[in-house]
Amino acid sequence: MPSQPAPDFVLANALMPDGRRGAIGIAQGRIVEIAATPRPGVPGIDLAGDLVMPGFVDGHMHLDKTLVGLGWMPHQAKPDRMSRIETDKRIWPTLNLSVAARAANLIELCIAHGTTQIRTHVDVDTEGKLSQLHGVLEARERYRDRVSIEIVAFPQSGVMRRPGTLDLLDAAVADGADLVGGIDPLEIDRDPAGQLSGIFAIAERRGIGLDIHLHEPGELGLFNVHEICRRTEASGLGGKVTISHGFCLGMVADAKADDAASRMARAGVSLVTHGGASAAIPPLLKLRAAGVEVFAGNDDVRDTWSPYGSGDMLERAMLIGWRSDFRRDDQLALAFDLVSAAGARALGLGPHGIAVGAPADLSVAAASGVPEAVVAHPPRKWVMKRGRIVARGGSTLARPEAPVGLA
Amino acid sequence: MPSQPAPDFVLANALMPDGRRGAIGIAQGRIVEIAATPRPGVPGIDLAGDLVMPGFVDGHMHLDKTLVGLGWMPHQAKPDRMSRIETDKRIWPTLNLSVAARAANLIELCIAHGTTQIRTHVDVDTEGKLSQLHGVLEARERYRDRVSIEIVAFPQSGVMRRPGTLDLLDAAVADGADLVGGIDPLEIDRDPAGQLSGIFAIAERRGIGLDIHLHEPGELGLFNVHEICRRTEASGLGGKVTISHGFCLGMVADAKADDAASRMARAGVSLVTHGGASAAIPPLLKLRAAGVEVFAGNDDVRDTWSPYGSGDMLERAMLIGWRSDFRRDDQLALAFDLVSAAGARALGLGPHGIAVGAPADLSVAAASGVPEAVVAHPPRKWVMKRGRIVARGGSTLARPEAPVGLA
Repeated sequence: MPSQPAPDFVLANALMPDGRRGAIGIAQGRIVEIAATPRPGVPGIDLAGDLVMPGFVDGHMHLDKTLVGLGWMPHQAKPDRMSRIETDKRIWPTLNLSVAARAANLIELCIAHGTTQIRTHVDVDTEGKLSQLHGVLEARERYRDRVSIEIVAFPQSGVMRRPGTLDLLDAAVADGADLVGGIDPLEIDRDPAGQLSGIFAIAERRGIGLDIHLHEPGELGLFNVHEICRRTEASGLGGKVTISHGFCLGMVADAKADDAASRMARAGVSLVTHGGASAAIPPLLKLRAAGVEVFAGNDDVRDTWSPYGSGDMLERAMLIGWRSDFRRDDQLALAFDLVSAAGARALGLGPHGIAVGAPADLSVAAASGVPEAVVAHPPRKWVMKRGRIVARGGSTLARPEAPVGLA
Repeated sequence: MPSQPAPDFVLANALMPDGRRGAIGIAQGRIVEIAATPRPGVPGIDLAGDLVMPGFVDGHMHLDKTLVGLGWMPHQAKPDRMSRIETDKRIWPTLNLSVAARAANLIELCIAHGTTQIRTHVDVDTEGKLSQLHGVLEARERYRDRVSIEIVAFPQSGVMRRPGTLDLLDAAVADGADLVGGIDPLEIDRDPAGQLSGIFAIAERRGIGLDIHLHEPGELGLFNVHEICRRTEASGLGGKVTISHGFCLGMVADAKADDAASRMARAGVSLVTHGGASAAIPPLLKLRAAGVEVFAGNDDVRDTWSPYGSGDMLERAMLIGWRSDFRRDDQLALAFDLVSAAGARALGLGPHGIAVGAPADLSVAAASGVPEAVVAHPPRKWVMKRGRIVARGGSTLARPEAPVGLA
């Protein structure tokens, strides 16, 4: 551990996720000291036993699709993925808020709930081209002091069935996207070799990671899990590749899920889940036990695909735990890990948590500990990003503020 | 429609579940008038467009099991039903709050969220005998002006494997329970003929209904669905029999679920669901389409069986909708129906809803309509039971108050 500067601000009487109570010293946007009592003379606030939680990592969003900030809009698509893709094309031009404005509205919801890092997919296709990306880039820039955002160039409409998409994905990375995406190489493109070769080639050439949507059921999806693992190993991209959803892992025979879990762990392919909703939920305990990095994201929030969602990753932890039959405290702590530290590990963010050396990205709520925080997801009193206050009382601040006057 | 008295109180500028806006006139604890504008001279409050929702019906609770009001208690049982049953016996004597006090704490949570009617199961067995029942009866009496409570005498530990239980169930009904319960006649008792004959005999003799927990999977559960339907018809108890959970209906082949749905509709057997959690969720649309009365309940709320739950039936509607892939407005309206009018129909409560002649059981929240209320489950500003205010700002009142000063 490198030597730390002296704290210039302290959160006293904090309850920490591991159950300790004490004072959290902050300097230069990082946690620099954890002690039983605050250093005398250092300014700070008394948390009176409130729980301090590390910044939440929302590992799967669609900032460009949200309708947050518009009035209620009934869901218009038919109950299949292709109808949703086509309905987007019809609805989006009619909205009277820009992509950047809608994304901003959802970003504010996320920050207010304690999210300090987002990975968002952004549609890139031969119709909209890079317009959605540019809107989200604009929003990212606007909120850069309040939340960190990583962008996946997402070929929502398919890759091989829309010639020109690979060039657009590459152009999206050149314009600021951080990862390249993919989607259902069999169901959408009917050409897994084509899609996966194409997107892995971009990732290799650009030296970036991949995050691939895999909704495909059962054995169909499992085929692509193995294809993705094989290509991850062959390309040396281990640790930088994520499968989003992976419902198939919850639909196949136990022995096959075991085998896929080992394969993913060996290849360094992570899994992000939103809890499955009406689809199967992957066997999270099995995947974690095998060494797969499993993390969580809200996915659609009040958008053209789904009316559900609040932007709250702590509520997401509850949903995932409820779906996964997590009842014990160690299981609820795992659900909490999925929405915080696991996301940080999967995204390669470095130190994360209420620990010396980690960034002072955190939020505060009234809860007796992590298990209660998960099941009750109580309101966040305030949220801190890099040592500065970015939300208070459920509202995101217009600019980060020094942490004073919070008591 | 019988002629109605003139309103002596009016909720003006109300948004109603069907989308109308207008004034809701109340007299003698009932809704007596719905008009575009309030009658001049009648006292009232201006809702400024807030949504008025009918009282929620929580059709499946376990008031005697809750730990609400105690500090956080980690879940202690192993992940099987028998361990949970046995763990209860160990934990309950150690609690420093009575059954009545714990039940009261949960009842207050329910009322504060707009629930005006509860059906609760209460454990009756050869160990605790009627002690849990007496605690819940005490709580019911205490809250009788604020919420209506129906009690099912529930043989949690089994019927045939615990000789003497049938007599206790009968005694529970004599002491104030409204229905007789049952549980997994195959898995728990290994004697479906014995258990079902026994509990149906009590119901017939007492002229009351039945509500039977059925967690049994697949074909095992389906066997008992058909047994329950057959006995319901034979005993003339159609319309008074409920299956709780019925996970099996979501686990069998489509044709068998179709057949069971028709059978249940014909026999007058309803189904109550909490959304399935980690188990299968029954096919709610299919059941409703077949004519089965499907309604909803929170089930365990922060108790020895599950750490989850808030007491909020609107959040429950969200969970059920999320699990059932309800995205369209008509589907979200169905989720809302499950937690309100459907429960009233299943429980035989008579008129229910925002309609002339219905009791003035309602709650108010800021929402653009029923679909948004379901997905967002916004806080209830206040709750009314029989025309009087019973909760305000998330807190249940110590006694019902006249509806003044709410604006």
